[in-house]
Amino acid sequence: MIPHSPTGTIHGVGLGPGAADLMTLRAHRLLSDARYIAYFRKAGRAGRARKTVDGILPCDVTEFPMEYPVTTEIPLDHPDYNETLSGFYATCATHLRTLVETGEDVVVLCEGDPFFYGSFMHLYTRLKDSVPVQVVPAITGMSAAWTATGLPITWGDDVLSVVMATLPAADLVRHMQSADALVVMKIGRNIDKVRSALKAAGKYDDAWLVECASLSEQTVQKLSQAEGRVTPYFSIVLVHGQGRRP
Amino acid sequence: MIPHSPTGTIHGVGLGPGAADLMTLRAHRLLSDARYIAYFRKAGRAGRARKTVDGILPCDVTEFPMEYPVTTEIPLDHPDYNETLSGFYATCATHLRTLVETGEDVVVLCEGDPFFYGSFMHLYTRLKDSVPVQVVPAITGMSAAWTATGLPITWGDDVLSVVMATLPAADLVRHMQSADALVVMKIGRNIDKVRSALKAAGKYDDAWLVECASLSEQTVQKLSQAEGRVTPYFSIVLVHGQGRRP
Ligand SMILES: C[S@@+](CC[C@H](N)C(=O)[O-])C[C@H]1O[C@@H](n2cnc3c(N)ncnc32)[C@H](O)[C@@H]1O
Ligand SMILES: C[S@@+](CC[C@H](N)C(=O)[O-])C[C@H]1O[C@@H](n2cnc3c(N)ncnc32)[C@H](O)[C@@H]1O
Repeated sequence: MIPHSPTGTIHGVGLGPGAADLMTLRAHRLLSDARYIAYFRKAGRAGRARKTVDGILPCDVTEFPMEYPVTTEIPLDHPDYNETLSGFYATCATHLRTLVETGEDVVVLCEGDPFFYGSFMHLYTRLKDSVPVQVVPAITGMSAAWTATGLPITWGDDVLSVVMATLPAADLVRHMQSADALVVMKIGRNIDKVRSALKAAGKYDDAWLVECASLSEQTVQKLSQAEGRVTPYFSIVLVHGQGRRP
Repeated sequence: MIPHSPTGTIHGVGLGPGAADLMTLRAHRLLSDARYIAYFRKAGRAGRARKTVDGILPCDVTEFPMEYPVTTEIPLDHPDYNETLSGFYATCATHLRTLVETGEDVVVLCEGDPFFYGSFMHLYTRLKDSVPVQVVPAITGMSAAWTATGLPITWGDDVLSVVMATLPAADLVRHMQSADALVVMKIGRNIDKVRSALKAAGKYDDAWLVECASLSEQTVQKLSQAEGRVTPYFSIVLVHGQGRRP
């Protein structure tokens, strides 16, 4: 018999875009066997990642919800914002490290793909040099979004650019102009900036808006038909490429 | 009892990057129940997608391998190339349409995510207006590639650009310069062009080469340490973003 390893492993497990059956077999197996799980959530919320795994976890699993200390109270460009978040990630990382050092494995739930703009990355960099960390990739939100539009995103030699709506307007326009296919994430309150940038880049009429891709609340529409709509953070704007196709 | 639908459905099912357990639960269910499957392959080869599903398919499944008529015999920019491929896709689409019109469902195996530079898209556009087609998204090869490097691909406001190595050198350089994080696909014989373009864009020393991501043959190395290496088509070059991180 192989002796029980003195240190456990932290598994950063991507859950995919949200539909439970768009999870991988590997993620499902790790969740079904989990003794400890951890996940981020906003204070007072159930947590989207946590909801995705309802009904998969063993009933005696131990949960560690990691509640964000800031959301909108401190402006993004204020030095306190980074400091508060940084302290929060450090505390979470310490808790997880202590747990795996007792020999337990911990599954950290991640929305979408962990290494693609994911919060898990902030734990990962703080942990990877001291304890074993394994990452399970997953379907990104953008894959679910373009699938929902019923149109392929990229053909032939198309260039795809992924931009965050939090970028300054001028940067948005520049990248929108040079890409063939386009994905815009972190929309929310930045929707008006995104609209103007798309107009400036001549791509507004070709843009689609997808909210909550793959979930039962999913909506799909041309952006131009969603004038005045309040778009949630969990939405994606995209423009399909028109490249070579035999 | 609901009567059997007169027309079946074509399921374009993404299998993910290659490791069998990185398939989704949805893909696994469709494959386990499949009566008819179809997949592309090079003449004389088993087909990578087909190999991924070994051991999942029912033993009495009927298979329709779609063998590419051209690979390297006709140059990519020759008019015959497009015409030959176009005729091939039309023939495959007709076969699948005929089959689903008899009431059968067909699962078309797709490498990675079907709507992301996938061959299935050429069948999809020829079929979607005449018969029901459903697409199951999947993990892209690039997600498996950046996971394999052990480093997140994008942080904060990083812009990610995905470019094909088949692009002209000048376009490659321009896009490499303007992106924060970079993914280059369809490498193969274009590797020297990719190396020079990365050098011109000042990103050569930060580039990674990942072959066969998530498969047992996977290799991961800095591109600069792979001088002279013959890179297969099934490889990805990437440069990680260095954006904001609390
Ligand atoms: C912090 S990023 C995390 C991305 C995630 N790791 C992924 O792989 O998609 C959050 C952004 O992802 C996008 N997103 C992720 N999943 C989505 C989904 N199912 N529907 C709509 N947007 C989604 C939204 O734009 C959201 O603002
Ligand atoms: C025609 S594109 C298909 C992309 C696929 N639909 C996807 O979602 O990744 C083929 C290219 O994908 C890349 N690729 C896909 N999966 C890969 C993997 N597991 N390892 C390395 N490269 C991969 C290679 O660059 C290859 O040249």
